[in-house]
Amino acid sequence: MRSFGARLWDSLGQFGPLCVGIDPHASLLESWGLDATADGARRFGLRVVEACAGRVGVVKPQVAFFERYGSAGFAALEDILAAARSAGLIVIADAKRGDIGTTMDGYAAAWLEPGSPLEADAVTLSPYLGPDSLYATITTAIRREKGVFVLAATSNPEGLPVQTALTRDDSAPGDESVAARVAREIGSLNIGLPGALGSAGLVVGATVDRAAFGLRDVILAGTPILAPGFGAQGAQPADLTRLFGYVATNVVASESRSILAVGPDRLETRIEERAALYPRTSHD
Amino acid sequence: MRSFGARLWDSLGQFGPLCVGIDPHASLLESWGLDATADGARRFGLRVVEACAGRVGVVKPQVAFFERYGSAGFAALEDILAAARSAGLIVIADAKRGDIGTTMDGYAAAWLEPGSPLEADAVTLSPYLGPDSLYATITTAIRREKGVFVLAATSNPEGLPVQTALTRDDSAPGDESVAARVAREIGSLNIGLPGALGSAGLVVGATVDRAAFGLRDVILAGTPILAPGFGAQGAQPADLTRLFGYVATNVVASESRSILAVGPDRLETRIEERAALYPRTSHD
Repeated sequence: MRSFGARLWDSLGQFGPLCVGIDPHASLLESWGLDATADGARRFGLRVVEACAGRVGVVKPQVAFFERYGSAGFAALEDILAAARSAGLIVIADAKRGDIGTTMDGYAAAWLEPGSPLEADAVTLSPYLGPDSLYATITTAIRREKGVFVLAATSNPEGLPVQTALTRDDSAPGDESVAARVAREIGSLNIGLPGALGSAGLVVGATVDRAAFGLRDVILAGTPILAPGFGAQGAQPADLTRLFGYVATNVVASESRSILAVGPDRLETRIEERAALYPRTSHD
Repeated sequence: MRSFGARLWDSLGQFGPLCVGIDPHASLLESWGLDATADGARRFGLRVVEACAGRVGVVKPQVAFFERYGSAGFAALEDILAAARSAGLIVIADAKRGDIGTTMDGYAAAWLEPGSPLEADAVTLSPYLGPDSLYATITTAIRREKGVFVLAATSNPEGLPVQTALTRDDSAPGDESVAARVAREIGSLNIGLPGALGSAGLVVGATVDRAAFGLRDVILAGTPILAPGFGAQGAQPADLTRLFGYVATNVVASESRSILAVGPDRLETRIEERAALYPRTSHD
């Protein structure tokens, strides 16, 4: 095994940036001819994993769409996570968990502990309780060769009031937005780690105006970026380099509906079509 | 059935503010002589529910301590939620979920839909993606006679940079902290609802300096408050009225370790001792 960042870097080089979301929304299950049940979600997810294997490097199951079915939904998610990891896919569990101290240890044990039933390669985290509240989880993740993606600037307009608010800490260099503070503090955990890419990542929406969030020059070069907002949400794959500048090589570009909506039969073709739209950059 | 806020108000009047956390941390399971497994967590939780019934009005299971055991942990939590609700306890699932649009619908279906395997009376939510991103979930909750508690100002010091940051929206009345913005927007959802207490609650730590967070006069009178920080975390029950002022009658005071650490045999006595320390205010 190698660090999450090293594995992600190789995957981006081999397959490019596209990451396929596994979002068994009730309306998608219906259009696929599946029941809106835990078993329907399992079949959906296993089919997406099958179609992704060898075509993209990364998949991102959205935990909420399994949680809605309770323990049966989590059992389905366990099967999908295991299938994806056996197929050599890097799995980012999109859970957006965030809490303090020993409670975060519980979430880390759930998603990032080798041998756990819900073991993934990385998990998304939410920093409302402060980026510092996530440090122990992130250092544990790095030690286990796992990764995290912490929400910094999301692509939804409702996020602006919180994420562009200005922090008031005297230790900060001038006025700094919440998103920039998160980006700076989480990114700093990649300093001194070997390789081109660290394992402490950020979530930055593709449609985010990075200047408005004070994010233009804050993100350290070795920081992985999970970018929702491509495909159905409006950002164009060909614009990835323009949108992300000097961290474009680190971007995992997540698409869900734009791929899943074609249904189970055309899935392989659609994934290949979408993957081909993204620029390929050197990852030597 | 009546609204969550009406049921909570009656419960606070009958039993007082104490809410018992159900936190099957590995170290607590060990000291109780239980295995650190899903089954150990189930036994732990069912014992806490048994001891709480008729002694307090509200329990708060911490989801992370079940999630760490994957689907088996959620099956244990389902049993505990069902037992607690059958015993007439109000159950707040401490999940701190937060996401956008249809994804939030998934979390709402998991925790707040009547008949769902994980049905609770209320769930905690995290507003990093903006308080507006939670509106649909909250209005759905109110329609189903359920409630929510949205994180505003938490008791951990790491939360300060995010929660005290100043929002930059021209529509806001002067400088407003993120915590105050959340408190104002979520609290406004209680306006016009019948009864003394609405169903859109806030999480405000008992040890929070409300002036530093700009929270002194922002919280509307009819807003339920979930307050961690009593007991092992340092706030004194006798200080509740001083700490929360005009919303003291709305406070659900959460304690976990201070009660659970006595072990399974002395649990009833300990709950009665702790409950008796809180001031009782009129809830007519």
